[in-house]
Amino acid sequence: MPEIDKLPIEETLEDSPQTRSLLGVFEEDTAAISSYFSQLFKAMQRIYDAQNELSAATHLTSKLLKDYEKQRFPLGGEDEVMSSTLQQFAKVIDELSSCHAVLSTQLADAMMFPITQFQERDLREIVILKEVFQIASDDHDTAVNRYSRLSKRKENEKVKNEVMEDVYTSRKKQHETIMHYFASLNMLQYKKKIALLEPLLGYMQAQISFFKLGSENLTQQWEEFLTNIGTSIYVVSVMSSYQLHYIELIMIIMIK
Amino acid sequence: MPEIDKLPIEETLEDSPQTRSLLGVFEEDTAAISSYFSQLFKAMQRIYDAQNELSAATHLTSKLLKDYEKQRFPLGGEDEVMSSTLQQFAKVIDELSSCHAVLSTQLADAMMFPITQFQERDLREIVILKEVFQIASDDHDTAVNRYSRLSKRKENEKVKNEVMEDVYTSRKKQHETIMHYFASLNMLQYKKKIALLEPLLGYMQAQISFFKLGSENLTQQWEEFLTNIGTSIYVVSVMSSYQLHYIELIMIIMIK
Repeated sequence: MPEIDKLPIEETLEDSPQTRSLLGVFEEDTAAISSYFSQLFKAMQRIYDAQNELSAATHLTSKLLKDYEKQRFPLGGEDEVMSSTLQQFAKVIDELSSCHAVLSTQLADAMMFPITQFQERDLREIVILKEVFQIASDDHDTAVNRYSRLSKRKENEKVKNEVMEDVYTSRKKQHETIMHYFASLNMLQYKKKIALLEPLLGYMQAQISFFKLGSENLTQQWEEFLTNIGTSIYVVSVMSSYQLHYIELIMIIMIK
Repeated sequence: MPEIDKLPIEETLEDSPQTRSLLGVFEEDTAAISSYFSQLFKAMQRIYDAQNELSAATHLTSKLLKDYEKQRFPLGGEDEVMSSTLQQFAKVIDELSSCHAVLSTQLADAMMFPITQFQERDLREIVILKEVFQIASDDHDTAVNRYSRLSKRKENEKVKNEVMEDVYTSRKKQHETIMHYFASLNMLQYKKKIALLEPLLGYMQAQISFFKLGSENLTQQWEEFLTNIGTSIYVVSVMSSYQLHYIELIMIIMIK
């Protein structure tokens, strides 16, 4: 773990050029982080959307196969082998779509949630704190201006005290806001690391669960099922080519 | 395998009402097949598109992580642990995107290809053969009409022979086309079964390979890697909460 640069909160009372310059570097860095995360967020959103679409399309395919029985085909409606084969396909594809749905949910919770939080809460907080700090600085400048104009002429004690009080409270407010702002900028250096690693970790763990679920629960039963289907397709193919030759034979005999 | 209904090609020479009626049933059945396959095709196309998008988005995410090193962050650019961790993430996510790309290719070859062929070749062939048969029937009707008009008056032998010849060749042509049309409609009853089972079989086998590839090659090395990452995230979290408390402490001291 290398030393992480920090804005000196202890020195926020004295508004030194060194601190101002370091603040500029932190603000640039925050802008670079925002830009990088915005790209990463879009890429992860694409993964998540594609995963949802895959889940929905797989479910639809399974549903269409289940509905095969209900189709009103004028011919071959009584083909039990075909119907039961398609029901089995529908069942395993539905199981797969459930796995996809679990993956989607895990990606939502463990990938999209933390990266969205970072975008919408942490990065947004910095923007807001900068604005708040700017407003407090402006208020303080106004108060100081009023005070410097005041010292040039005679005023009654009451007004003088009011203006002094104003300079003091606005300075205190400015100091509080810059401390908050610095603290948030410092924290962002840690948060960005967590915000990078956490969604990636969530993504990987979701993928691992998906592969485990798929290979342990589904693959074996699928393979048994596919061996039977393979035989069935073979039978159909053979009958089909037989028919083809039979039909051709008749045609040749008749045309001659 | 149940008995499959067949249009009697042997009886195409005698154009009986029974055969015409059976043809109507086959044509209705073909329309129902077309409609069902069109839905199934769309669902499979959605799976295929989503799979491609998933593959592309996963690859992009990996690329963004690889590019982290090249980002010009004014701060923390020298964080070796973070850089190497992200490189490792980039590597495993890239491997996963390769698995997805393999799956996409297999879906293209073993699912989309056969169902597209059925749509664009087999079902289209039926449409074309029906048109060809219609044209041949119209030509034959025209020839027969000419012949019946001819028989009412006297014509020279040459014209008579020509018309007779025309009736014969157009009848032969019509018979050939109806045989082709019937043969194709009969074949479609077999082809539709293969066209249903083949893409499903391809889909399932592609998914099984994907799960095998994922669980055998990737899962183990991922888990080792993630154990390390887990530790690294833990360290960052602890440091982060430490910092948070430290910052809060300073702020409280200064504000009081």
